[in-house]
Amino acid sequence: MPVMTLPAAIDQVAGQFVAAGVSEANARSVARALVAAEADGLKGHGLSRVPTYLAMVRSGKIDGRAEPRAERPKPAVIAIDALDGFAYPAIDLAIDELPTAARQQGIAIAPIRNSNHCGAAGLHVEKLAELGLVAILFANTPGAMAPWGGSKPVFGTNPIAFAAPLPGRAPVVIDMALSKVARGPIIVARQKGEPIPEGWALDVDGKPTTDAAKAMAGTMVPLGDAKGATLAMMVEILSAALVGAHFAYEASSFLDGEGGSPKTGQLILAIDPGAMGGSWFGARMTALAEAIESQPGARLPGVRRLALRSKAAASGIEVPQA
Amino acid sequence: MPVMTLPAAIDQVAGQFVAAGVSEANARSVARALVAAEADGLKGHGLSRVPTYLAMVRSGKIDGRAEPRAERPKPAVIAIDALDGFAYPAIDLAIDELPTAARQQGIAIAPIRNSNHCGAAGLHVEKLAELGLVAILFANTPGAMAPWGGSKPVFGTNPIAFAAPLPGRAPVVIDMALSKVARGPIIVARQKGEPIPEGWALDVDGKPTTDAAKAMAGTMVPLGDAKGATLAMMVEILSAALVGAHFAYEASSFLDGEGGSPKTGQLILAIDPGAMGGSWFGARMTALAEAIESQPGARLPGVRRLALRSKAAASGIEVPQA
Repeated sequence: MPVMTLPAAIDQVAGQFVAAGVSEANARSVARALVAAEADGLKGHGLSRVPTYLAMVRSGKIDGRAEPRAERPKPAVIAIDALDGFAYPAIDLAIDELPTAARQQGIAIAPIRNSNHCGAAGLHVEKLAELGLVAILFANTPGAMAPWGGSKPVFGTNPIAFAAPLPGRAPVVIDMALSKVARGPIIVARQKGEPIPEGWALDVDGKPTTDAAKAMAGTMVPLGDAKGATLAMMVEILSAALVGAHFAYEASSFLDGEGGSPKTGQLILAIDPGAMGGSWFGARMTALAEAIESQPGARLPGVRRLALRSKAAASGIEVPQA
Repeated sequence: MPVMTLPAAIDQVAGQFVAAGVSEANARSVARALVAAEADGLKGHGLSRVPTYLAMVRSGKIDGRAEPRAERPKPAVIAIDALDGFAYPAIDLAIDELPTAARQQGIAIAPIRNSNHCGAAGLHVEKLAELGLVAILFANTPGAMAPWGGSKPVFGTNPIAFAAPLPGRAPVVIDMALSKVARGPIIVARQKGEPIPEGWALDVDGKPTTDAAKAMAGTMVPLGDAKGATLAMMVEILSAALVGAHFAYEASSFLDGEGGSPKTGQLILAIDPGAMGGSWFGARMTALAEAIESQPGARLPGVRRLALRSKAAASGIEVPQA
């Protein structure tokens, strides 16, 4: 695979989407997001998505020419309709509009409906933290996890992403799916005909299984078991019920061109830390980072990601041929 | 122990706090919160707290006469200083002020600093959901969990509570500490000289232990291990760094009269579901509840709690003698 600088990679990837009929602006938004995830080593949300995104564009499952629309029903709300397009242009719009609203009101919220796969969620909130805001993103994904005690998927793996500015350093970024493990290792185990560890997944009857094929037909185990299932319900309510999106169990796959738009949702919160009654935030963040980093073996989340990002900026990334 | 109606129990408990020098208004706020938790079967946040709260009042660790103060630095922010008093009067103030602000702005936020133990966090957000709002509460607590890979407590067990209205029914309420298990069972095991299951706690060197005494001297394991530790960090940033509270590792105990005010923090968010760009929320909540409840073995969170509440309202609760 040829190695390219990040700007060249963005051009190359955007070109593939434009060739498939995606508008220039949307193609660049998608390409920037995928290349940024790839540069951070988040390959599951990086260039590996190009073929499936193209399949969704070609089948009409994603409207590559949709222009997301923002309304302002209340002073602190940027309500965005992604109009069955890619998630990234809708999220870019939220990131453009949220800072001013958050600084005016103290907090602002952007519900995004009729959306799609939002990729590496941490990268979105990180942009808001780079502007001095504390940000949270909740998103739902197609059905993957059952309510605790049940057997049918109602919730997605439903990521929570969080970012906060840290004086003089890159923001603290937290980004986690609410399943115990990602689906990727289970797919690999099935391909190799190998078992998976107990505790990762349940079969169609809601029973623990170590059979990767049965796991794929069943559901993923939430992180922290029952507590994680309740957290997934919270995210489902915030990112779908509140914003007017499909629930996980109604959403079509992010991974193929079959069916209509997934119409999943995202909810982004942006908080101005200078509007909370005092000016303590920066000093407090520095103190917390020190309390963590002074312990042998402990570190801030995202350290590995930032190291990979520096390497990619200096040396480029491998980009598959179109 | 005598059985009392809930109003009589509130009178009895409030009387004990007034006798210890707590203002009438604060005493009733605290008594209402403890009796409500007791009625819901949440005994760790119920009347079992009366002796330790009284110890904190008598030593001056809690200022029983503090009147929490609210400022409005921005239209969507109710910044509250609990002034080293009980958390409950400060939270009552937030619950009084948040609904109007949330309906005007679409979302509103109440940071609470110089606070204390907030008890059954789900009961606070439930009140906002009863008024038609979606609400989230983040709180920190005295040090209990280490950053992943570390051995010294930096984070509390840091509860997340969430509530959302459900048409024609009690709100959906989610309330969880971020430790894998509560500290209560470990205290009991130590008293009995019994071992605890592996995976609950770490010793002072950050190594897994089944020795309850070593666990008490060490740290609690977060739910979902590394992911839970990062969630606890997120809650620490939201409920302490942002609001200007002590971090978990700086906070004195909630359980005795030793030391100064814990000065922990809470952050409450209230969202108007009618301000998100459409009027779909109620119907979507009903659909989600049905998707969960139609599965054998699955249920909405809080069902047991509501049953206990009905029983307590009808039959009263046991109240220890002063």
